[in-house]
Amino acid sequence: MIEGILAGMRVVEASAFVAAPLGGMTLAQMGADVIRIDPLGGGLDHRRWPVTADNTSLFWCGLNKCKRSVALDLASGEGRELAMALITAPGEDAGLFLTNFPPRGWLDPDALRQRRPDLIQLTLQGDRHGGSAVDYTANARIGMPFITGDPDATEPVNHVLPAWDLIAGQLVATGLLAAERHRRRTGEGQHVRLALQDVALAALGNLGFIAEARAGQVRERHGNELFGAFGRDFVCADGERVMVVGLTGKQWRSICDALAIGPAVDALGARLGLDLRREGDRFRARRELAELVRPWIAARPMSEVAQVFDQHGVCWSRYQTLAQLVNDDPECSAANPLFREFDQAGVGPVLAPGTPLTFQASLRVPAGPAPLLGQHTEEVLHELLGIDQAAFGKLIERGLVLGLAS
Amino acid sequence: MIEGILAGMRVVEASAFVAAPLGGMTLAQMGADVIRIDPLGGGLDHRRWPVTADNTSLFWCGLNKCKRSVALDLASGEGRELAMALITAPGEDAGLFLTNFPPRGWLDPDALRQRRPDLIQLTLQGDRHGGSAVDYTANARIGMPFITGDPDATEPVNHVLPAWDLIAGQLVATGLLAAERHRRRTGEGQHVRLALQDVALAALGNLGFIAEARAGQVRERHGNELFGAFGRDFVCADGERVMVVGLTGKQWRSICDALAIGPAVDALGARLGLDLRREGDRFRARRELAELVRPWIAARPMSEVAQVFDQHGVCWSRYQTLAQLVNDDPECSAANPLFREFDQAGVGPVLAPGTPLTFQASLRVPAGPAPLLGQHTEEVLHELLGIDQAAFGKLIERGLVLGLAS
Repeated sequence: MIEGILAGMRVVEASAFVAAPLGGMTLAQMGADVIRIDPLGGGLDHRRWPVTADNTSLFWCGLNKCKRSVALDLASGEGRELAMALITAPGEDAGLFLTNFPPRGWLDPDALRQRRPDLIQLTLQGDRHGGSAVDYTANARIGMPFITGDPDATEPVNHVLPAWDLIAGQLVATGLLAAERHRRRTGEGQHVRLALQDVALAALGNLGFIAEARAGQVRERHGNELFGAFGRDFVCADGERVMVVGLTGKQWRSICDALAIGPAVDALGARLGLDLRREGDRFRARRELAELVRPWIAARPMSEVAQVFDQHGVCWSRYQTLAQLVNDDPECSAANPLFREFDQAGVGPVLAPGTPLTFQASLRVPAGPAPLLGQHTEEVLHELLGIDQAAFGKLIERGLVLGLAS
Repeated sequence: MIEGILAGMRVVEASAFVAAPLGGMTLAQMGADVIRIDPLGGGLDHRRWPVTADNTSLFWCGLNKCKRSVALDLASGEGRELAMALITAPGEDAGLFLTNFPPRGWLDPDALRQRRPDLIQLTLQGDRHGGSAVDYTANARIGMPFITGDPDATEPVNHVLPAWDLIAGQLVATGLLAAERHRRRTGEGQHVRLALQDVALAALGNLGFIAEARAGQVRERHGNELFGAFGRDFVCADGERVMVVGLTGKQWRSICDALAIGPAVDALGARLGLDLRREGDRFRARRELAELVRPWIAARPMSEVAQVFDQHGVCWSRYQTLAQLVNDDPECSAANPLFREFDQAGVGPVLAPGTPLTFQASLRVPAGPAPLLGQHTEEVLHELLGIDQAAFGKLIERGLVLGLAS
């Protein structure tokens, strides 16, 4: 077994959906022992789509790889007692707890820290007041749907990628690692909080959207055009579509060289009174520049465009459908060490990613399957709480736990 | 001065654009001393849009808050020598280096580690082969544009939020913290690599998109509908638009209760032969369910919809434009402790976010301004390399450094 960079760390997780499970999985895929606790019938996300024909969730399998699964009757006091004991179990590198459930009742941080004073608990919330917010509502609130899509449209366009959840999931991992560093230096545990809505607001601020809007500058819809420089999609002679980017000076010069449009660009700049070596001026002249680029691409099949672009180091990509990506693109296959093929119980053979981080000091932890619900209940209760086989059998009989054989 | 959770850590950064600067800023906003090194005229992103009327970049200011800025003549051997000395300067909590420039020449990890054997260097690349890829090309390649937007459209719709950059930026912070933990346990430094294209591929895999496509299931364009459950946008009587989400059973019941459509939903389920308590069946019946929800919302102004929704705990949001967000939403103001107002040199008063993570064990580091280019060259060269005022004056005279007064 390959030891990851976080080998030795143990995290208990009570979670559902994207951000919190992704935070835990990020640590698991770097070698931490991440134990997800679920109710007996599975968590709120246990059947989240996409699903297989027999209703096994590809989503759940994707976001819980490399974890151990413990299933307990969390509706009962005894089941919750077991969960609290797992969360606060001893171990120098343990005592890390991640949840996106409200920090009250059995998840109350003060009560948990009475059992383990140096416990680190990270609670992911919807908004900072404890209110309900999910990726789709956070996105509607922060304005991106009104600047996405066709410039002539007036209706909002939701993103399909749950970007806020994905960003929040990584912040969860960052927050736990930062708190763990602090604990190793001071011995001090703590409650860390993160609100999805604040994640979205912070990103908007960091990218300059808030300053821009407060200055009264209205960000318009620009369709597939890159804001503030040159970049957009074009259609090749064979109907294939490519995204072409000239953000930096070097990228822009490579486009001019590949298409031999340097003199025409110079003439255009002179005519418009713009310095097209400057990214902002390229944005101002984006429509005219597109007319210089379009005919060259429209006259050639994608294969020829690709060859010339690659020869000149152009920053570009073909637009692929998901089917093209998984069927044709070698980067989305086991030829890319990010991925590994294995059998996922309930699904069959899958191609699954590990962490995209490559640490020179430790081999990449290969992507591994998600557990079956309750697959590790017995071993975890034994390892962490010393519950033996006979005692576990009684818990099974009383319906308090789900084990692999039950 | 408030000490953040990462107080004491020192990171040197040579970067541009979103992901790498965001990774460094994430650490800076948790209290690390992050020193960004730029060439004398500023980096590739120094004028990135949005900009003010006098061409100060709101983007650059947003992504470099709370850092120190050192400007050196990186085209000269002496300037690069100073940069290498800063990167490898001693200090138990130092020796962390973050870059998105190719790991060769003066950024060659082996050469740098000869100067400081326990150096941790993280290199963010476009693709894993060292090729060029940016958010816009990574996104085109992985298929999301073909499932975003109007279900009747055939053209790709680019996202406007550089989601892959934002995710990669957080992974940068996670990777540095994980490597720093490893170094504290073993003394070992290392080179860590991360490719933006792999970040996108991993996210797709984690969310189940790859398994779904490999199983031959075609993810269609669903416009503003949430996939796999109930959720979409609706228009109120006053033209305001709301996003309404019934993903979990509880969320769905709150919608039924708020609108008093429980009996109608039951009748619909019976007619269609679906169990609408199940999220997948709600997705199958999404059009019919929308027709039950639509008239109620269409008959009421947003204020009334809001009141009833909040009373019943519905998971929803108004769609806001960016202007509405910054002008009307109290969460996007200094009333939210995420934000702080201050004067940003070259810009004027700004509202800027700190880290969205709240650590109980340390006060939140307040958002602070981005530096002026070269603002800290003199103090950093003095602190880290012992270069005194006279020697610094000579560096200035020779045009090797940019200082605040130069």
